[in-house]
This record gives sequence, structure tokens and C-alpha cells, in this order.
Amino acid sequence: MAEKLKIISLGGLNEIGKNVTVYEYGGDMIVVDVGMGFPDDDMYGIDVVIPDFSYLIKNRDRIRGIFLTHGHEDHIGSLPYLLRDVQAPIYATRMTAGLVKLKLEEHRLLDKTKLITCEAGETVKAGKFTVEFIHVNHSIADAVSFAIKTPVGVCVHTGDFKIDPTPVSGGMIDLARFGQLGKEGVLALLSDSTNVERPGFTKSEKSVGESFEGLFRGCEERIIVTTFASNVDRMQQIISVAAKYGRKVAVTGRSMENAIKVSTELGYMQIPAGVLVDVNHLKSLPKNKICIITTGSQGETMSALSRMAFSTHKQVDIQAGDRVIISASAIPGNENSVGAVVNELYRKGADVVNERERALHVSGHACQDELKIIHALIKPKFFIPVHGEQRHLKTHAKLAREMGMEPNNIIISDIGKVIELTPTSAKLNGSVPAGRVFVDGYGVGDVGAVVLRDRKHLAEDGMIVVVASMSGEDGSLISGPDIITRGFVYVKESEGLMEELRLVAVAAIQECRDQRVKDWSAIKSQIKNDLSNFLYKKTKRNPMILPVIMEV
Amino acid sequence: MAEKLKIISLGGLNEIGKNVTVYEYGGDMIVVDVGMGFPDDDMYGIDVVIPDFSYLIKNRDRIRGIFLTHGHEDHIGSLPYLLRDVQAPIYATRMTAGLVKLKLEEHRLLDKTKLITCEAGETVKAGKFTVEFIHVNHSIADAVSFAIKTPVGVCVHTGDFKIDPTPVSGGMIDLARFGQLGKEGVLALLSDSTNVERPGFTKSEKSVGESFEGLFRGCEERIIVTTFASNVDRMQQIISVAAKYGRKVAVTGRSMENAIKVSTELGYMQIPAGVLVDVNHLKSLPKNKICIITTGSQGETMSALSRMAFSTHKQVDIQAGDRVIISASAIPGNENSVGAVVNELYRKGADVVNERERALHVSGHACQDELKIIHALIKPKFFIPVHGEQRHLKTHAKLAREMGMEPNNIIISDIGKVIELTPTSAKLNGSVPAGRVFVDGYGVGDVGAVVLRDRKHLAEDGMIVVVASMSGEDGSLISGPDIITRGFVYVKESEGLMEELRLVAVAAIQECRDQRVKDWSAIKSQIKNDLSNFLYKKTKRNPMILPVIMEV
Repeated sequence: MAEKLKIISLGGLNEIGKNVTVYEYGGDMIVVDVGMGFPDDDMYGIDVVIPDFSYLIKNRDRIRGIFLTHGHEDHIGSLPYLLRDVQAPIYATRMTAGLVKLKLEEHRLLDKTKLITCEAGETVKAGKFTVEFIHVNHSIADAVSFAIKTPVGVCVHTGDFKIDPTPVSGGMIDLARFGQLGKEGVLALLSDSTNVERPGFTKSEKSVGESFEGLFRGCEERIIVTTFASNVDRMQQIISVAAKYGRKVAVTGRSMENAIKVSTELGYMQIPAGVLVDVNHLKSLPKNKICIITTGSQGETMSALSRMAFSTHKQVDIQAGDRVIISASAIPGNENSVGAVVNELYRKGADVVNERERALHVSGHACQDELKIIHALIKPKFFIPVHGEQRHLKTHAKLAREMGMEPNNIIISDIGKVIELTPTSAKLNGSVPAGRVFVDGYGVGDVGAVVLRDRKHLAEDGMIVVVASMSGEDGSLISGPDIITRGFVYVKESEGLMEELRLVAVAAIQECRDQRVKDWSAIKSQIKNDLSNFLYKKTKRNPMILPVIMEV
Repeated sequence: MAEKLKIISLGGLNEIGKNVTVYEYGGDMIVVDVGMGFPDDDMYGIDVVIPDFSYLIKNRDRIRGIFLTHGHEDHIGSLPYLLRDVQAPIYATRMTAGLVKLKLEEHRLLDKTKLITCEAGETVKAGKFTVEFIHVNHSIADAVSFAIKTPVGVCVHTGDFKIDPTPVSGGMIDLARFGQLGKEGVLALLSDSTNVERPGFTKSEKSVGESFEGLFRGCEERIIVTTFASNVDRMQQIISVAAKYGRKVAVTGRSMENAIKVSTELGYMQIPAGVLVDVNHLKSLPKNKICIITTGSQGETMSALSRMAFSTHKQVDIQAGDRVIISASAIPGNENSVGAVVNELYRKGADVVNERERALHVSGHACQDELKIIHALIKPKFFIPVHGEQRHLKTHAKLAREMGMEPNNIIISDIGKVIELTPTSAKLNGSVPAGRVFVDGYGVGDVGAVVLRDRKHLAEDGMIVVVASMSGEDGSLISGPDIITRGFVYVKESEGLMEELRLVAVAAIQECRDQRVKDWSAIKSQIKNDLSNFLYKKTKRNPMILPVIMEV
């Protein structure tokens, strides 16, 4: 029996983010993207979510290469965690490699990692796979799709993309190459589903530049622009229009400064000489000669824009009249934090312009009509929607059916599920370990469901600690019970309630003594139950109750 | 010196929700709306936010009446809390009074409250004020604006409104009356600012009916529709189109059942005989004869739609093919919970239709062009934007300036600030107590900033309790220290860390003994600091540390 091609996503299905896909044939594996995810609202205290890498770690000797489509965190962010246990050459375009390099330096992993720079059009052999880099448009420079040649056929893995006929740099997505691959025959298409719910086309990046023109022309005030740090083309457009209108540009916020450094070093940005100035030197310039580019488009508390608004930025304070341009849309879940910054900007008298009023942001992902073009060009035998929640995957499947694809040839998978492909068949067969691993501070994986459940409980109702010292000899109460609470009620104004709680605990201990209960854990249960019932009746609340008995 | 008119908002400025406005002249006061607010994301465990009513309580003998514009929670939700301390007649239209009645019954306040029903066009005298009810369009039936005649002039208080020339019931907003008032002369306009950032006009409620038509016509599957329970006209449209296509309608979810009960009793809904069926009787009907109207348009965990999706609803389980229509937009902050339900609906094979694809929801608030019409009709001397965050108030002020209003005649106030008006002047002068009071379970106001800060700390990092018994005589350690954690790390997998923590605590106690520290609070500080430093270095986390010393 001939070998089958296996495709396994370790992330990016039924979720947005942490994209990782494994292609496996015989003894060889390649990995496409190693992304990280962001915590949901109820994952209290979690900094970052990474994939469960145990399948890759177990098979580390079989990994022939790691291929990266582009430099966004949801495609490269988990690399430092994977590289702790797995060593394999990393292949990426120049911009992506530049960003990976920064990241690996930070984690002191650069020396032991083989990082190979490729260009669109190049082909890399990795075991039984041959991977071709194909230029695409996206909201970061130098993004690529992969055409992965395998013994059973060619797979096209789009990564994130859009079709932009007038991009700021790099030229339009290589539709010709996709068409050629389609004519030669493509076994499977794995395509981005992020914007599949939106009809029509995503607007060109150039349209944003036209909006900037209108806002810079004739403006006599300072202009402050915030956008995503990774969107180099956007920053290029801001700098170009600023230069055109005689403004100097200062950049503030660490990720923004890093992005400009990397992209100018690598030649992805052209900044006219003398335009960039240090943010400390703005004071000497007249208002209509100043443009500040800043982080904070998502309302992040510690970002430069937020600090300017709340007057905690060292160099820049918002002044009445400042024109603040928000060249980004709020990622779902961030609306309220963006709103808080915008309100504060208005309170300081700024003139805030956002994308509701003008085209100040365009997405980096293909909408329905663009996706249809890709389907029509590639004409794959099998279609596997990726990069999306269930709603996106199902809607993308519907789009593919509308394009004439056989329903049976569309595979909606899930993380960890194994898709087996032959030249004539595709089916789900079995699974490998996959899931979400939480990173909290330095800890990777030491916080899980139980800890998060406790955090949620503590968050909503606070806690009550009941401490008593009891005799190890005869079980008599020696000291306490003392009641300590945090996050429950104002203690000073609730002294009566605290005393009532103490009396309930005393009664519970007494009852245990009367019934000759000597097992500490039974006594603790009694205290917990009695207090819990008492409190719910009295306050309709359910704090975490922690009885502690010290045997003395 | 002549008396001045005072206008004081106790809520609804620099926030969305909890609208309360006080009009005061001489010894008389009236209150317009008594709304509640919803907690922000970081107000852990808070159920409801109400205004600080201390100013009204202090002046309870001067309150001549409470006037309600409409029955939404952000305009009536705090009534039960105010009526605990304040007794005054409540004036409202029939629909609003019906909803207030339900609420007061629940809080056992109905008997001692004087609730008077008025109709649009009527006028009520309350002390030195005369209040006229003016019909407006909004997303709930029977909404009104007030023209408040005072000794210094007429104030128009819009409440929430839109201009709908083709509403489902009740006729268009009474623009003629606004125009007449404008001609007679209006001193001040207090106008809704909710949608002031949106250009153009809000679509008519009727446009949603047309979308329903398209989705019901020819559909052979069950149809499940979710919307806001208070939107009676929306429900009327759903029921009408269902009846037209021969479907029976079942209603599920408590707030939806209540709303239908009140509005049919009061004659705000006309349901053809035999159309409504009990949700238990659906099983006997063919799929294309079923329409279910359900709560859950915001993805609320316990709502009927959420329970259907996650298979915990007693009578209805989502089946493959079900057409689920979400006739609502997600309120900012709810996108992720709505998304979770939608994903689960897709997973069960439902065909989900939302407002991105079709006009399935329209707002109840006026957009820019409607606001301009109101300004142009009323031509007030002074303008006070209300119902909005700073961004909305400022944008509404800009709109008023563009309509030709003097910048000095526009007052942007804040909660608690006193606006003083004479026939020729308006200015801010002084303030009264105002703020946010948190309701958690039965507790009103016993949770404040410190408790919330602790909850946030507990939520993000969990906690560590260190307990030790020490001799009251010589300060020697008798038992412990024991380490108990919750919401910090998996204890079973972190036994080594727990032992390290214990040793740090032992060392801290020992050091205190060596240095002859005998004060328990100093020893506790030492334990807390040492553990905190140790943990931050080792884990980059900062759990709440609670040292407890029992003196025995």
C-alpha cells in the first residue's frame, strides 16, 4: 500500500491565531508557521497561548524544515517555545527572517538556530517535500504562500493574503503562478478564512494613503497617527505624506521603533533624509511641522498613545487641537479599551479621526470575491479551509460549494485531527495530541483549567480564609477561628458581618466536637458548607472559602 | 435676584447608561429617567451599576415627580433602588408603566408607589414644572420626549429617539410639535448622542421586516430568531411574517415571554389567533411550520439560544439545517460571547444568518442627519448633549456648531455638575455628589474600588496563604508555616515550588527571631516581602500573599 500524505493542524482551526500546520509523508515532516494566540477574556492572568507541541517534540528527528509565511505573531510567535525542544532549519523571506531574528535574540536562541532566507519564486527541498515560495499581498511586507510538492500531489498553503492590485510595495500577489499551478493540477488547497464572512473585495492599501493626504493637507496642528507596528507599508505612507507636507516624523513606542529599524535596515522602507527626528526634539518645531507615529491602536494601557492621552508619556502630552488619526480597526474585544483612550483624547481637546469617518484602515485578508478568484485559479481537487473559527470554516466551505466543489471533497478539520490524502482521496483518520498551553510569566503549562476556574471564582466573589488552631491531642479549639477576607466586601463597613461569620465557624467547630468528628478534613468541610450557606442566604454571593486548621 | 433653573445629570454623561437627570427650580425638583448601567469588563463580580442617589435622598421632600421617557433598563432600571428611600409619583406612558409595574412587583414596591399613566400629547403639572409628553420613535414602543416648561423657559429633553417615517406602530415621531416648540422658543435642548458618530440616517424598522420576508419565503427548515426582548415592533414583524407563511410561533426565554405578555395585554402587539404555541408542542409540527423566537442575541451564557446551541435547553436542540436569524448587533464587549454561540450553532449544522449579510437589525438612535433635523426644528438657545461618552458629547457639540450654534451656548457637563440657566445665560456652577454604586448580589455599595482591586489581583495571579502558629509567650514557631494556594499553579505538579516557598517562610520567621522582632505585623510583612521577591524572580508572577499568624 502506497504511503499517504498527512496534514495536521496543531493550531488555527476553530480559533483565530496560533497557526501551525504539519505536513507528513513517510518519515519526513515539515512545519508551516509556528504562531501564538492571545488569551480569551476569561483566561485571567494568561499572557500568551501556545500550541501543544508534544507531537512535534516526539517526532523532532523527522522534521526537515520549518517554513514561515510571514512575520505576524500568530504565525511566528511560538517559535521560541518550540525551539527549546526542536531543532530544524527555518526558511523565511527576508522581512520575516528579520523579525524572527529579533525574537530569537531576545530568547537567546539565535546561535543554535539555522535561519535561511529565501525569496518569492525560490524552491526549497526538505526531505520528500519541495516547497515553493509565492509572493502574496498582506498587511506586512514579504508575505508568501507555499506550493508544497509531495509524492501524492501539490498542496497550496496560502497563509494570510489579500489581492491588492495597487500595493505600496512588492507588486500584486502572483496570481499568474497560482493559475499555472491550477492548470498543472493541485491536490489540495489550504486557504485563509479570516474575512470569508465579508462580501466583495478588501480595499487596496493605497486607498489609505489618499485618506492621509486629505487629513494632512492644510492642517495647521500637530498630527499624531497610530497604526499596527508591523504594517510597514502603512508607516511608509504616513512618512511619505508627512515629508510631502514638510513635517518631521518622530516615532514612539518600542514595537514601532523596532519595526522601523528592521524594515529600513532591510530596505523595506525608504525614509527621505532628515525627516525622522528624535521625539525629544519635537519641542523646537512649530505644530504644523510635526507628525508623531505611535503604538496604541488597540488602546493598550501601556502603549505610547494611551500614555500621551493620560499624561504619563515622558515626551508627548496631548494638546487641544492635536489631530489624532487612528489608522486601525479595533480587534473584537478591544473596543472598550480603544474607547477609553479616545474619550480621554477628546477630553484633552484633541480632534480624533477614526476609520468610521474615513478609509483609514484596510484589512490584510481576502474577502469573498478574492477568495473566489483563488479557488477559480487553483481549482484544487480537495479543499481544506484554515485560519478561522467554526463559523469561518463553514462559511468558507459554503463558498467553495458555490464555486462548484463537491461537498465530499471539502474537509473541515480540527486541531490535532489527521487528514490523510492520496492522489484520489482525502479523509480524516485519527488524531495526535493538540491543545492550548498557557504561558503566565515564566511558566509554560503550569496554569490549566483548574487554576483558571479558581481565578474566575476569586475574581467574581473574592475569598474568605478561616483559620483555627486546634489541639492535636483532644481536638479542642486553642485559638481562632479568625476570618480574613479579600475581594469580598469592605471589611471596615462590614464588621457585623465578619463577627457573624466567626460565630458560624465557631458553631460549626462546636457541632463537630459534639458529634465527636475528629477528622480535620471533615471539620473543614463543615466550616466551609455552613459559611457558604449562611453567606448565600444573606448576601446572594458565593466567595471562595478556605478553612485552615493548624494542629498544635 | 431671580431664581435659576438647575439641571443636574446623576448619570448618562461620560458613560453609556444609567441615565438620570434632575431639573430643579426654587424648592421644586423633577427627575427624568432613573436608569441603571452595566459593569465594565474590569468590574469583576458586579451585577449592576446604579447612580449615587444621595442628592435625591437628601432632597426627597422636594421631588414633585419622576418622569420616564421609555422602558429600557438604562432609563428605568434603578427605580427599585431609588424607591427604597424616595417616594414620588411616577409618570410614564402605558408601555413604560407596564414594564415598571413588573419590576416593582418583583421588588415588592408596587403597593407603596404611585404610578400614573400618560399619553403622548398630555401635560402634567409638577410643582413649578409643566411636563408635556411628545411621541418619538425608538426601539421600544411608546417612547416619548419631554417639553419641560419652567419659569425661565422651555427645555426639550429628547430621551432616546430616532426619526422613522415608516415605523411598525405608533406613527412617526411628532416632528410637528418639535417644530412648533422651536417657533415658540426653546431655552435648552438636551439631546441623545448615542449615534452621533454615524453619518446619515438610521434605517426604518420596516426594512428589517423586508429582510425577514426574504428569509422565511421558501424556507423548508425550522426558523429560530433571536432579538432584543424589549423590541416589540421587531417581534411583531417576526410573528406577522411567520403567520403569513403558515408557521406557528413558540417563544422561549424569560424576558421574551414577559415582553410578549405585557405588550399583548396592553395592545402593543397583535397576534393572530392560533399562531402562538407552547414550546413543548413543537415536536408534533413539521419543520417548515415552526418559528421559535428566543432570547440570547448577545450570546448570554444562560440565555435560551445559548442553551439550544450547547444542548442544554430542555425543549429545543439545534438540528442540522435549522435557520438561525440573529436580528441584533453585538453590543461592544459582547462580540466574543456572541461569536462563541454562533460557532456552536455552525458546529451543530445550523445555517446562521446575521446582520453582516442582510439588514436584520436597525438601531433605535438617531444618526447625524436626524440629529441635525431636530436641532434645526427646535433651534434652542442653549444645547446640552447627553447620553454619551466624552467622544459622543464632543462630536455632538461639533455637530451643533456646524448647525450654526454659538460655541459658548453649548455646555458639555459631567455627572454631578450643576448647570444654571436663566433666560439669557447658561453656565456650570458647582456640583452635587454623584458617582457609581456597585450592586453585587444583595449588596448595594458594599463593594468599591479596594475590593475590585483585590478581585483583579486575585484574578490575574491567584493567591498564597501562609499560616503559622506561634507562641504568644516567647514568639517561637509552634506549627507551620503551611502554604495554601488557589489560582496560582497546579499544586500537584509544583510540589517542589511549594516546599521552596515553605522554606522561604521559615527563613523569614527565623530572621525575625534572630533580630528579636516580636511584632506580629512586622513578621507578616517580612514573610510577605520575602515570598513576593522570591516568586517574582522565579516565576515573574505576583500572587496575592496573605500571611496569617495564630497566637497560641
